[in-house]
Amino acid sequence: MMFDFDQVIPRLGTNALAQDGYENYLFGADPSASPLQIPERDLLSMWVADMQFAAPDAAIDAMRERLSHPIFGYTMNFDSHLYEAFGTWCERRYDWRFEREHMQTSLGVIPALFGLVEYICAPGDKVLSLTPSYGYFKHAAIQRDRAFVTSPLHRRNDGHYEVDFEDFERQVRDPAVKLFFLCHPHNPTGRVWNEDELRRMGELCLAHGVRIVSDEIHCDLTRAGVSHTPMAKLFPDRNEIITCMAVSKTFNLAGMMIATVIIPDAELRAEWRRRHYPFVNPLSLAAATGAYRDGEAWLDALREYLDGNFAFMRHYLSGVLPEARFRVPQATYLAWVDLSAYFDESINLTRFFLEHAGLILEGGEMFIENGAQCVRLNLACPRTVLEDALARFAIAVDAHRSDG
Amino acid sequence: MMFDFDQVIPRLGTNALAQDGYENYLFGADPSASPLQIPERDLLSMWVADMQFAAPDAAIDAMRERLSHPIFGYTMNFDSHLYEAFGTWCERRYDWRFEREHMQTSLGVIPALFGLVEYICAPGDKVLSLTPSYGYFKHAAIQRDRAFVTSPLHRRNDGHYEVDFEDFERQVRDPAVKLFFLCHPHNPTGRVWNEDELRRMGELCLAHGVRIVSDEIHCDLTRAGVSHTPMAKLFPDRNEIITCMAVSKTFNLAGMMIATVIIPDAELRAEWRRRHYPFVNPLSLAAATGAYRDGEAWLDALREYLDGNFAFMRHYLSGVLPEARFRVPQATYLAWVDLSAYFDESINLTRFFLEHAGLILEGGEMFIENGAQCVRLNLACPRTVLEDALARFAIAVDAHRSDG
Repeated sequence: MMFDFDQVIPRLGTNALAQDGYENYLFGADPSASPLQIPERDLLSMWVADMQFAAPDAAIDAMRERLSHPIFGYTMNFDSHLYEAFGTWCERRYDWRFEREHMQTSLGVIPALFGLVEYICAPGDKVLSLTPSYGYFKHAAIQRDRAFVTSPLHRRNDGHYEVDFEDFERQVRDPAVKLFFLCHPHNPTGRVWNEDELRRMGELCLAHGVRIVSDEIHCDLTRAGVSHTPMAKLFPDRNEIITCMAVSKTFNLAGMMIATVIIPDAELRAEWRRRHYPFVNPLSLAAATGAYRDGEAWLDALREYLDGNFAFMRHYLSGVLPEARFRVPQATYLAWVDLSAYFDESINLTRFFLEHAGLILEGGEMFIENGAQCVRLNLACPRTVLEDALARFAIAVDAHRSDG
Repeated sequence: MMFDFDQVIPRLGTNALAQDGYENYLFGADPSASPLQIPERDLLSMWVADMQFAAPDAAIDAMRERLSHPIFGYTMNFDSHLYEAFGTWCERRYDWRFEREHMQTSLGVIPALFGLVEYICAPGDKVLSLTPSYGYFKHAAIQRDRAFVTSPLHRRNDGHYEVDFEDFERQVRDPAVKLFFLCHPHNPTGRVWNEDELRRMGELCLAHGVRIVSDEIHCDLTRAGVSHTPMAKLFPDRNEIITCMAVSKTFNLAGMMIATVIIPDAELRAEWRRRHYPFVNPLSLAAATGAYRDGEAWLDALREYLDGNFAFMRHYLSGVLPEARFRVPQATYLAWVDLSAYFDESINLTRFFLEHAGLILEGGEMFIENGAQCVRLNLACPRTVLEDALARFAIAVDAHRSDG
């Protein structure tokens, strides 16, 4: 195999959030927490959305090449290299085109969300999103005194999530709702919204004056046979849809803090340029450009490996925890598992799996509503790690069931 | 010589703000601007505060070393390597110590200022600074509906700037003033505030409940014989003084976007940790750590070279433009020249030198008040470039004088 995703790469000593930051992030400064019985070195990190795999040489070589020019002063993306690499990527993979001047860079999708809420909404306006929702959609809204309202997704018995369009329409009809944060593919459910769903959501928003920020950060990580359609592609004549994409998830470069934001509306773009922190790290620019230009073979191999991890997990769970409701997600490397058959709401699942399995994952309470008794596991790890993790997972659930 | 500051390093094609971003930054989208008669390639960039010199190997080697670990996921500064290198640096150079937990990282000093204004001041509160002032002090205040008030520095006839303590005291007595942005060493005047001045400003602020954010980003770039005292060092028992330092200026790493912010107050630090974007680029962390650890010899050589550039400039100006009021700054690589003997206020000096000398510099109007008929030139360039620039500078002034 050209790319070795089986290699276990220790991250100790690299200031990785996945490794060293879980306690504060997941539990805050909780004085009631009892000391962990499991040594730190034995914990398995399956929470924050980055990967335990090496980034592609396409990115690393590009950074090394940039280091050969020894000046690293104030940098902005003036040239078209990133646009050409990323634009070609979108054209080839999504048959989607956008203009050079529409493309802005940001220090990640999260800072883009925080900015866009302000540039689009006035204080008191409402921001809508689908739940369960990644926490930062809410944080971005409320930090600036915008309200956050939700439309809960409906979970079918087979684990497939769907938009409740009746509720969605009720929400967008509220004149105070000015912005819809779409997460597409959706974190944590892994849904890739299909064209019909995208059109319906898009038309409802546009009909009611609601702008759309489509966070498509996971778009490159679809399962084999699943295709992603950028929301903006379906409305080529409208300029109310802003698209966020990044190399963060696709190429495991979240630490490089660079994202691309496509803003077709000239007025909003002017506001962005006036107010958004404009700098970019020259090495991040190199990494992103190199990854989009030369990283496709690596990504295809990664996707195949992830497909294998998900197949393994489905097979494993169906054997040992048949009542865990789990459906292989259409995209992302995040498994979302409903454990309501085994746990009642009194259990904090994040803490349960940390304490009883040495497994760092995110329980449903880490997301905005509609995630009770669910857990999210990050499957972007070597198969052997996944095997270990799932064995611990199953043993802990089993022990809890026997206790109960 | 061990370090070659004479080497001219082209920055074309590196997305450098200094090279490609001057028009938008200095002039915005000015439709009245006449097309430039001088070809772009012949312009000399002496504006934005980064250097035309290679960064030290201490930083570049550390980045290269970090690239040998291939994972670049979400990163925060959990370990103590940066603290040890930077803390030792401060101890050795400034005889100043601070605790590990007081040190936070930020994506630069500017983002730190924007954050601190919010964490410290309520809307409507006032932020004080000395003028002429770097524009971002004002922007940081007004972007979040805090008012910006100023205390103009007094310029003596010999070009030395002083605090007008009578005015300063009047300002801090205003109960709405909650924060003082100190720029130390001061940009653009190059003043290194001495212990007496620092004590007087500090005591006045503390007596009137005004917190201090001391932006000491230029502190490592003093002239030979000038010593810098961190403001916070003079008030070891007080926790109202926040210190910002960075490798940005010192080691020409502004593009790496990393700064250290020393926050002694536990409550403010908790607020910072709750609200400030916590991530750091792993390569930036490596660069900063490497630079502080192994970059001192390079810095000492750089300072000597800069001293030489300033001596050259003083000598040159006194010969050809004796009425230009220029005093070698105590720190920074920025020359601040009063040209009121040659120009009246009707002339936009930024545009004048661009059009008539092909010289990109910042006129006084780029700063907040008290900068009329002054210009700021960035002297962090090879001597040959400086010679060329000053020749153009003098010829243009001379031609203007002859016209008048």
